[in-house]
Amino acid sequence: MKNCIVIQSGGPTAAINASLAGVIKRASEAGYDHIYGGINGIVGVLSQKVMDLTEKMAEDPDFIEKLYRTPAMYLGSCRLRLPDPNVEPAIYDALYSHFKRLDIDTFFGIGGNDSMDTVMKLASYFKKKGSSIKVIGVPKTIDNDLLYTDHTPGFGSAAKYVATTIREMAYDTMIYPVKSITIAEIMGRDSGWLTAASALARTKDLNAPQLIYLPEVLFSVKECIEDTKMLLKNRNSVLIAVSEGIRDTDGDYISASALEKDDKFGHAQLSGAGKALEHILGQALGFKIRSVELNIPQRCATHLASKTDLDEAFGLGSAAVCLAEEGKTGLMTTIQRDDSENYHVTYGSVPVYEVANGVKKVPRDFINERGNDVTEKMIDYLKPLIKGEVDMSYNDGLPEFLPVGHLTSTID
Amino acid sequence: MKNCIVIQSGGPTAAINASLAGVIKRASEAGYDHIYGGINGIVGVLSQKVMDLTEKMAEDPDFIEKLYRTPAMYLGSCRLRLPDPNVEPAIYDALYSHFKRLDIDTFFGIGGNDSMDTVMKLASYFKKKGSSIKVIGVPKTIDNDLLYTDHTPGFGSAAKYVATTIREMAYDTMIYPVKSITIAEIMGRDSGWLTAASALARTKDLNAPQLIYLPEVLFSVKECIEDTKMLLKNRNSVLIAVSEGIRDTDGDYISASALEKDDKFGHAQLSGAGKALEHILGQALGFKIRSVELNIPQRCATHLASKTDLDEAFGLGSAAVCLAEEGKTGLMTTIQRDDSENYHVTYGSVPVYEVANGVKKVPRDFINERGNDVTEKMIDYLKPLIKGEVDMSYNDGLPEFLPVGHLTSTID
Repeated sequence: MKNCIVIQSGGPTAAINASLAGVIKRASEAGYDHIYGGINGIVGVLSQKVMDLTEKMAEDPDFIEKLYRTPAMYLGSCRLRLPDPNVEPAIYDALYSHFKRLDIDTFFGIGGNDSMDTVMKLASYFKKKGSSIKVIGVPKTIDNDLLYTDHTPGFGSAAKYVATTIREMAYDTMIYPVKSITIAEIMGRDSGWLTAASALARTKDLNAPQLIYLPEVLFSVKECIEDTKMLLKNRNSVLIAVSEGIRDTDGDYISASALEKDDKFGHAQLSGAGKALEHILGQALGFKIRSVELNIPQRCATHLASKTDLDEAFGLGSAAVCLAEEGKTGLMTTIQRDDSENYHVTYGSVPVYEVANGVKKVPRDFINERGNDVTEKMIDYLKPLIKGEVDMSYNDGLPEFLPVGHLTSTID
Repeated sequence: MKNCIVIQSGGPTAAINASLAGVIKRASEAGYDHIYGGINGIVGVLSQKVMDLTEKMAEDPDFIEKLYRTPAMYLGSCRLRLPDPNVEPAIYDALYSHFKRLDIDTFFGIGGNDSMDTVMKLASYFKKKGSSIKVIGVPKTIDNDLLYTDHTPGFGSAAKYVATTIREMAYDTMIYPVKSITIAEIMGRDSGWLTAASALARTKDLNAPQLIYLPEVLFSVKECIEDTKMLLKNRNSVLIAVSEGIRDTDGDYISASALEKDDKFGHAQLSGAGKALEHILGQALGFKIRSVELNIPQRCATHLASKTDLDEAFGLGSAAVCLAEEGKTGLMTTIQRDDSENYHVTYGSVPVYEVANGVKKVPRDFINERGNDVTEKMIDYLKPLIKGEVDMSYNDGLPEFLPVGHLTSTID
């Protein structure tokens, strides 16, 4: 028997199930007898909560296709960070014995930074033990902040959601002939890739958002007020896209710093960057300002997924199985952009220890000098990633997804 | 010359441009020489900011089709409420002279409650003056709270957005094997129709949202805590859909009352019902709770519009022109549901004075006894309204809309 096991971990994206679909499809073609899925990440594997995905494929010929377009994480997730295998080997010994019992040949981990840390530690443990069990990582994160991959699955769909929503909101905000400011708070605490995607909303006839603030540049409240006032001289409505992670010139998150300086502002729990900026600009300009937190739909709005993104996510899952077939271990699959002019990618790989715990920030030359917009370099980079629409299956007017009763039936 | 003029007013919806498209299409067929559009509602008409829509049609053969799927309000909006024509006739005299100069035969007003008030007053003024200018109203509002129409254009698309987003969010919230509560705050301050649409997210495999609170029933904080605790005994994640307009048993908005009773809670500006409930349940249950305000995408997410809704919006615009052709005035077009089993509607009309300033609340038997869910009657009512998807035109991965530069070029 040659079996494999796959887990998902970290936060959800619209594309992480497409990667799972890619792993399952290719693994079944590659002759794995059973493809197991660990429920709730490595935590589920430890407590032997495992489902047989080979059975799911046999039960439903459309399983792979439905999985491809189901949001969030079919196998569930966890937040456990594995300890150092040299310090606490017990947890690894337990995993090893479970894997032996299940005849596991390869472990696939689909996830972000923390998940790549798990992949790295597992691979190193098995190697040290002299086991032939292979461990391969498949990246995902809407934040697009993993190193050594041109971009990450999940990002393109989140970017498409952000750009579409910002464009629709721009239309919404232009209807009244009165001064108005709308602030959209976008995810990405430490890197501004997703906030930058708001720039894709623009057309030759629509210049919204007028201001874009990423966390990579310290945020000057004074300059933001100046820029907003300047814009309001020539137009009625201003739309501002702001990362949830902007910091002031002292390096404090805008939400936190605003709170400390202004008693009236409220309770920390209530105040993200958008709300803080709403308050700051409201005080400076003297009229009511609206802030909109795009919130979790950014990462789960599969109905608006980018086909490029989902296809690449599937491809990376498939590529991970190919690496295992070649006998590789300790690698993460990557996307390489071969041609920028006519967007074309191939799938490569990188030793996972190079990726784990690193963060890819937005380069300074992707942001304009004043730090209130992105440059053409950013636009050129982002544009291909949101292309293509996914054929969703609608029933009674709503997108249909795979049931995930296996996630709710396990009560802790 | 026989010309007409059309305005849009009130808040935007995904369908109000489809009604405009219906008016323009039918009016051009009915032999109107010029179809004028008042920019920014009645305010624009007063200041003679008017565009010739007949020209737009001539310039672009796809104008009607593009308009049909462009979000927000192509002609812009205003918030002016006209005075009583008997008390302040000057404003009406000004409108009358503009209309005479433009050879206006009919005025079409597309909008909600306040807009129907404008239609009513204009119709009564022209009648009293002995003028033959006809005035016809076309309803719209995502709140679905207009009387004498089975439902309102714009509601079906907002409902489809809410149901889709709640379903996607439900998947997002189920991934971790830990206790979690997610609150979705939905628009509709005085009527709960849109919040009720969250129930459409459910499938035989998905029972989210588990709790639904509408403003028609006073909100018991005590019962909500009880219900949530009860649900958490048998499941990890609870999703709560709550109207922005819920009030406590004293009749105070939940946001306001929570603020008064708890100094630590924060600033009024920051606290909608969702945030207030997040605070209340967090205190009662002792863990972090997330609230998501669905916010303006509810009313402008045309990419997820209901085809049923947009087609009916178009139909009502068209029906308004037919009423004018029959020489009628002072009417609003309405949707009548002829067959509930096999959903079928026809377009009727009602004297606008019957509609203006009334509000259609959710009937008590559409809500369950405990006031924490909707009944099958509500589901049966809502289900047909979100059906069908609109063929959006995507370019570079984003939906394409008509440019609205005419709205931003007018700076006050």
